[in-house]
Amino acid sequence: MEDKVSVGLLGVGVVGSGVITLVEKHQEKLAHQLGCGVDVKKALVRDPNKKRHIEAEIDGTVLTLDPEDVLNDPDIDIIIEVMGGIDEAREHILNAFAAKKHVVTANKDLVALHGAELHEAAAKHKCDFYYEASVAGGIPILRGITDGFASDHIEQVMGIVNGTTNYILTKMHNEGVSYEDALKEAQELGFAEADPAADVEGLDAARKMAILGRLAFSTYIDLEDIEVNGINGIELADLQYADSFGFIMKLIGFAKFDGKQVEVNVQPALISQEHPLADVKNEYNAVYVYGEAVGEAMFYGAGAGSMPTASAVISDVVTVIKNMHRGVTGSQFVEPRFKKELKTDDQRFGQYYVRFHAKDEAGVFSRVSALFNEWNVSFKQILQNPSEHVGTAEIVVITHQSSLDKMYQALDELNSLDAVLDVKSFYKVEGDADA
Amino acid sequence: MEDKVSVGLLGVGVVGSGVITLVEKHQEKLAHQLGCGVDVKKALVRDPNKKRHIEAEIDGTVLTLDPEDVLNDPDIDIIIEVMGGIDEAREHILNAFAAKKHVVTANKDLVALHGAELHEAAAKHKCDFYYEASVAGGIPILRGITDGFASDHIEQVMGIVNGTTNYILTKMHNEGVSYEDALKEAQELGFAEADPAADVEGLDAARKMAILGRLAFSTYIDLEDIEVNGINGIELADLQYADSFGFIMKLIGFAKFDGKQVEVNVQPALISQEHPLADVKNEYNAVYVYGEAVGEAMFYGAGAGSMPTASAVISDVVTVIKNMHRGVTGSQFVEPRFKKELKTDDQRFGQYYVRFHAKDEAGVFSRVSALFNEWNVSFKQILQNPSEHVGTAEIVVITHQSSLDKMYQALDELNSLDAVLDVKSFYKVEGDADA
Repeated sequence: MEDKVSVGLLGVGVVGSGVITLVEKHQEKLAHQLGCGVDVKKALVRDPNKKRHIEAEIDGTVLTLDPEDVLNDPDIDIIIEVMGGIDEAREHILNAFAAKKHVVTANKDLVALHGAELHEAAAKHKCDFYYEASVAGGIPILRGITDGFASDHIEQVMGIVNGTTNYILTKMHNEGVSYEDALKEAQELGFAEADPAADVEGLDAARKMAILGRLAFSTYIDLEDIEVNGINGIELADLQYADSFGFIMKLIGFAKFDGKQVEVNVQPALISQEHPLADVKNEYNAVYVYGEAVGEAMFYGAGAGSMPTASAVISDVVTVIKNMHRGVTGSQFVEPRFKKELKTDDQRFGQYYVRFHAKDEAGVFSRVSALFNEWNVSFKQILQNPSEHVGTAEIVVITHQSSLDKMYQALDELNSLDAVLDVKSFYKVEGDADA
Repeated sequence: MEDKVSVGLLGVGVVGSGVITLVEKHQEKLAHQLGCGVDVKKALVRDPNKKRHIEAEIDGTVLTLDPEDVLNDPDIDIIIEVMGGIDEAREHILNAFAAKKHVVTANKDLVALHGAELHEAAAKHKCDFYYEASVAGGIPILRGITDGFASDHIEQVMGIVNGTTNYILTKMHNEGVSYEDALKEAQELGFAEADPAADVEGLDAARKMAILGRLAFSTYIDLEDIEVNGINGIELADLQYADSFGFIMKLIGFAKFDGKQVEVNVQPALISQEHPLADVKNEYNAVYVYGEAVGEAMFYGAGAGSMPTASAVISDVVTVIKNMHRGVTGSQFVEPRFKKELKTDDQRFGQYYVRFHAKDEAGVFSRVSALFNEWNVSFKQILQNPSEHVGTAEIVVITHQSSLDKMYQALDELNSLDAVLDVKSFYKVEGDADA
């Protein structure tokens, strides 16, 4: 057994700096577990003079501008890809596999888009390919699903997998501020990017759900299979109504599988205040899993950040090195067990929250409920308030379990009623004890 | 590769029945992952005619009264020990290792008491030894600690690891009933045993903390190292005061390690309502981990029950079979990294909750605070109410961070003051934002 395993780093940004720091700091624990040290031998950067938060001395010869220095170094056994982006990262990883190097990545965008291709390349070259850090940062959720629930049938995964949006929604809920003000504060504190689109529009969460769905259900989930609605433009009024009904608004990634058909979507939803996900606050992430045998389980923790993410990366490196020492690399890939079959709207059922404005005149509510009734949608909770415009009412309803398809048709008709001024909001409701 | 791996079962009670049911039900998923089936070939029982909840046909030749039929069957590669108890189970497991059979167990009592011996026997015979189900049922917490946080320094583990006591405390908190009434209801509903001593006195939780502490800190924790206080006799008044201060009472297993000294104890404690553990209700379990890099993480789920526990057992069996196929069994044992060094009371610091009764006369409170002040204990929150006995007051304080040693000495002196009638309660406080 060698004294040290050399790893190469692609990218020394927030996560890469954490990786270098952590490898240095925890060298002794790594050596104890592995019987050898870990050495970051080469690290690809765009600008070697950029200021980095690394709590370790870096030898000047470690940083390089040339990817070949990392990918073609014969001493390097493991490539850690933390540069982000798609095309360049994909190419480097494919080259790494071709050179028989194992790969650990934190790149959710890449794994969500090209996971199948990368897994097959890894298997072809008998290389390991791990990406625990790509979903929910430091939380070991991918291991939990693949190893911890290896013997169970996972029926549902619900994730708060985007810290930015959870921070914004928590802020709105706790302080009664608007979406715009909460976003601004999140940006000032560094919890949201200057361009927050990928987060607030739900795309970041969708990428993570594609990865979670694939591992939980053993079927390929493509990004275009995922219906995505973000929290941009969400109104405080809906968070407040949710609260008054005993719910809290969260951006939830849903993935369900009934053994045949799968459904994956990302949307703001009302979660019962009794549900474990309801208590996940601020920038924290959590993934809730429902398994046939295990029942409810939840994994909670920091979904991002330099050190939590680096910790997930190095844990994958530890797994790879153990596999190397035992001579069993390249064996973790298993072909998906199921051919993907997506649920259509008429096969999707749920409870829903609707807020709309109508003329405050005799018979309006009875017409509205007759309309929903025709589509087999019945109401569980109803709240009517005078709206801010004289002569109009604001009506909020929570339905019993209904077909999504019929729900959409009822909403179309609702919108076309003369007495209805607008349909403001339409959200899913989860965790209610509806029979 | 063989068609089927044969396993032998020791015990077909609640968990064993779940194991047989699950292996049968999920045969297809197991075959997909493993490339082979799993067959429960022999199962040791005490009474073959006992009624069991097994959703699968058992061939009459599977059940046996003779342990040798299980332990000496040359076809059987893996022994699943779910019979419980100490001496007999230990002997069977040692015999299994001697016969080169891998062992998976759910037996926390045995692993807490004889874990070191069993690990060494497993390593000697190059056998696997896994026990995920021994702590927190279906929650994959041992994997989380050993694999998920492999690269991190775990500084603290706090667990709600006993469902019975969590059910009782939740009941008391939500419904304002006494300990005795809540226990009685828990017994009627099957959440507490007829003899609840091991649960309510904290011993069950201590066994799980011994296992968690060992894996988290890489040092042997013996049961006698663990200070244990149960919830028996806990008073509703303290839960209600806790609530009014913004805390909730939970039976918490604490394990801390500063890189040199370790501290493990089980005790009822006041947890801040903002802490993730505060929301763990009813019979649910959760383990909160604080790692240097990962920060806060929590694993939540069902801590007991036939199917959740069986699911953890079979996930371990999956791991063993993968190791068998790769030819790498017997490699998971790592000698503890640290020699155990326990913290003494003067090295233990915390915030504390004290409730006592004193004569309601001028100058008493000033004498009490002077007394604490002499021991360097200062108060963060104070509440004084007239007690039910005329002329006496009930006083509740929450301290700032204090040495436990000095706290004990202050309490001794408090007890001996003429004006003090009794010291009713003394609990630890966790999760407060005390500087």
